[in-house]
Amino acid sequence: MKTIDINSDMGEGFGSYTIGDDLEMLSIASTANMACGFHAGDPLIMATLCAAAKERNVAVGAHPGYPDLVGFGRRHMDMSAKELEAYFVYQIGAADAMAKAAGHRLTHVKAHGAMGHLVADDEDAAEIFINAIRKLNPELILSTMAATTLWRVGMQSDLRVISEIYADRAYTDDFKLKSRKLPGAVIHDPEQSAKHVLAMVTEGCIIAESGKRLNVAIDTVCVHGDSPNAIGMASAVRTALEGVGYKIAPYAATH
Amino acid sequence: MKTIDINSDMGEGFGSYTIGDDLEMLSIASTANMACGFHAGDPLIMATLCAAAKERNVAVGAHPGYPDLVGFGRRHMDMSAKELEAYFVYQIGAADAMAKAAGHRLTHVKAHGAMGHLVADDEDAAEIFINAIRKLNPELILSTMAATTLWRVGMQSDLRVISEIYADRAYTDDFKLKSRKLPGAVIHDPEQSAKHVLAMVTEGCIIAESGKRLNVAIDTVCVHGDSPNAIGMASAVRTALEGVGYKIAPYAATH
Amino acid sequence: MKTIDINSDMGEGFGSYTIGDDLEMLSIASTANMACGFHAGDPLIMATLCAAAKERNVAVGAHPGYPDLVGFGRRHMDMSAKELEAYFVYQIGAADAMAKAAGHRLTHVKAHGAMGHLVADDEDAAEIFINAIRKLNPELILSTMAATTLWRVGMQSDLRVISEIYADRAYTDDFKLKSRKLPGAVIHDPEQSAKHVLAMVTEGCIIAESGKRLNVAIDTVCVHGDSPNAIGMASAVRTALEGVGYKIAPYAATH
Amino acid sequence: MKTIDINSDMGEGFGSYTIGDDLEMLSIASTANMACGFHAGDPLIMATLCAAAKERNVAVGAHPGYPDLVGFGRRHMDMSAKELEAYFVYQIGAADAMAKAAGHRLTHVKAHGAMGHLVADDEDAAEIFINAIRKLNPELILSTMAATTLWRVGMQSDLRVISEIYADRAYTDDFKLKSRKLPGAVIHDPEQSAKHVLAMVTEGCIIAESGKRLNVAIDTVCVHGDSPNAIGMASAVRTALEGVGYKIAPYAATH
Repeated sequence: MKTIDINSDMGEGFGSYTIGDDLEMLSIASTANMACGFHAGDPLIMATLCAAAKERNVAVGAHPGYPDLVGFGRRHMDMSAKELEAYFVYQIGAADAMAKAAGHRLTHVKAHGAMGHLVADDEDAAEIFINAIRKLNPELILSTMAATTLWRVGMQSDLRVISEIYADRAYTDDFKLKSRKLPGAVIHDPEQSAKHVLAMVTEGCIIAESGKRLNVAIDTVCVHGDSPNAIGMASAVRTALEGVGYKIAPYAATH
Repeated sequence: MKTIDINSDMGEGFGSYTIGDDLEMLSIASTANMACGFHAGDPLIMATLCAAAKERNVAVGAHPGYPDLVGFGRRHMDMSAKELEAYFVYQIGAADAMAKAAGHRLTHVKAHGAMGHLVADDEDAAEIFINAIRKLNPELILSTMAATTLWRVGMQSDLRVISEIYADRAYTDDFKLKSRKLPGAVIHDPEQSAKHVLAMVTEGCIIAESGKRLNVAIDTVCVHGDSPNAIGMASAVRTALEGVGYKIAPYAATH
Repeated sequence: MKTIDINSDMGEGFGSYTIGDDLEMLSIASTANMACGFHAGDPLIMATLCAAAKERNVAVGAHPGYPDLVGFGRRHMDMSAKELEAYFVYQIGAADAMAKAAGHRLTHVKAHGAMGHLVADDEDAAEIFINAIRKLNPELILSTMAATTLWRVGMQSDLRVISEIYADRAYTDDFKLKSRKLPGAVIHDPEQSAKHVLAMVTEGCIIAESGKRLNVAIDTVCVHGDSPNAIGMASAVRTALEGVGYKIAPYAATH
Repeated sequence: MKTIDINSDMGEGFGSYTIGDDLEMLSIASTANMACGFHAGDPLIMATLCAAAKERNVAVGAHPGYPDLVGFGRRHMDMSAKELEAYFVYQIGAADAMAKAAGHRLTHVKAHGAMGHLVADDEDAAEIFINAIRKLNPELILSTMAATTLWRVGMQSDLRVISEIYADRAYTDDFKLKSRKLPGAVIHDPEQSAKHVLAMVTEGCIIAESGKRLNVAIDTVCVHGDSPNAIGMASAVRTALEGVGYKIAPYAATH
């Protein structure tokens, strides 16, 4: 039976604040990228997420971000190489401990927001990120959008790599995400999103808005939980994949 | 040869801020209790401390505190049992990762400030603390002031326990630290501090201000780095102990 | 025509986080207590709230709290008298500036959460709070639950006082809020809440759960915006008051 | 008698952390730029600074920065125009209140670190900054390095402007500060710094490292308090200016 993973960012609340409905999403996604307390998340939220994920056999990974809670980690912050490594190591270590204390285990790492853009595009930063993971635990899997600089550097490293596509984003002809500032960058219609994902997964390629195709392994589909219709979108993607015979399972459990 | 440990809180800066001189203290203490980013400390400071400690064969432990940077973790903050455990787990995990990434290893855990007072005196909190450590790594050693509730609960657990005395504090007749609000609570004179420590270590007992004695294993002497004369005080204690034949070495390396 | 004020805590988000629906609430309440950035709120949220409140003729006051975002200002934090005053002054000043820059003006001050409980019950803290307000602007009105220590101290000061009742809380026989830990402490049914408020406002007294009454001026009714049914509850209260001929208007605009 | 102002950034601690010696600096500088709680400073530190400044007739201004305590406001953070204005308004308002509560008054505003560089160089940001000040209180004086974009925009506005030179920095031929990454950018020798300041003040021009001169009003000399030799540097500058007959006084008190 064919399997594929669905991943989503979770644990993005802080104290009394909530973003998205983690419990709903845990019934759709097979992998959770857990915020680690810098751009979002706090120890109690992380503990709660790890326990709920374990109960539902959802894999948990670290989702480190910049120390910018008010900006949700979405704007760049200059860091030295040493500082950047330290921020990765700290957050991965904290996430690993939260998973372990819940009787679960940390399977992967995916960088968030502006920190994610930095490592996706900048080779030096990508190497710092990969080294931070390797120093802590070379069994941790690197999760990254397919066909980025990070993906390429990761593929050449001794880390395992999870290649992902986005369910709700249009791709440019060089297979990057179309800027949110441009029309059509974000897909809001569940059926359109599901159809787009299905085409990419079944053909085994990223499909740009123009129709241009790039053959690439696709291991996981990223769905979002923080928009009004998020659960509906994610659910439509899952249903579509199951409809053509895919079993939804954590990449980490099947590879 | 007799050995004894000297421990000190380190890594207590934040960003551009510094408290104490870690490099000086690393040449006196054999064990560092590393702030973990909540009451003090940040990932870069932790990385720097771990690297410097490894180079000097100084043991590094986690020194978790309340999430109160402006209050330096010195005032109590109400937490549920689940929340308290999560704050311990998170900080120990982060500290463990920082040590590991520096090629070092985390040896022990000691709670800071008001969080330290809570676990020292409250049996439920002590058990939460001990369980958090055990869930993560039962090889981690619990570091605590001798003769507290935490010490007693720790001694009955399967964790190893480091019993400590304070170099610069007077003890009451029930072998607690005399309140800082009372005269004579803090010893400021290096020679007096050194003499006090020497008496306790050589006799193997805590000596109250009144002269009352409690026989107890003493594994480590806690010296402080954040007062103007801190380095002089700590140095006098070390010199005195070496003067009577003690080798200063990390407890974790000798037990 | 009889007028009464309805007040609600607003601006309680932080960055990407939202609590309650301020725009909805601004169409029901006549007075907003604005979080000031310590337990909740940030400058952009405050600016947005002030502009929206001005447009709708809703009065804006400062709602200062403890510096505990993760705890939403709901747990006590020890502060010296000087520190407590400084935290009030800072937050009132920031709120005043946000209102002014939006072409609006700050009318009152109401303390939030655990800081609110402190000043409500502790006479020294009440005086520090009142002095902080007086030093900045003696035209600012003190908003406080009726019949508390703060209310009594405020009534004896030269500040104007807004006496408030809570729409969704049961009162004990000494006219304090019934502890949330006890059954019946919080009223969840909109009709029951509206009926309770109507009785208190029309009779001019606080009515305890037992039926015991305390005659007291009632200037404003506090409704909450952070529960699932909040808007429905608040709306029912407003409708009930209007139904018996009350005009809903900011206390500050009518006194 | 000729007068000139000496200004310095103060109140840059946070909780238990200290940067610089404010009490020493208050005996040298005539104007304090007070950190407002975002990149540094907290309400208690601000209250203490305002009281000490008032006692010594030192003028106090707001020194707003980015919300980045761990980065000390030294790295850029993207903000929308509305957000940038809100961060200025909030911090100026808080500072104004702290001064007022201490019986003092806020005289001016000077932007800190990366936020300072943004408004110095970017015309749109300069206008946002100036408008924020004007909305709150058009009597507040804009303090800025001479000959920047901000200085030019400020001179064309209806605000009063304090033109400043730096005591410890070399200037390029277009009268900007030489990058700290280049040799000679920072002057470390007190006598050299004093001589450089004296030449610029007495000639009424900025003098570049090459000797190139730009005639410009010089109202104040900025000295720093956060380097090891800071007090010695600042003191040498003051002594030199007094030696040629200048009275050191707050710009705000003499204009």
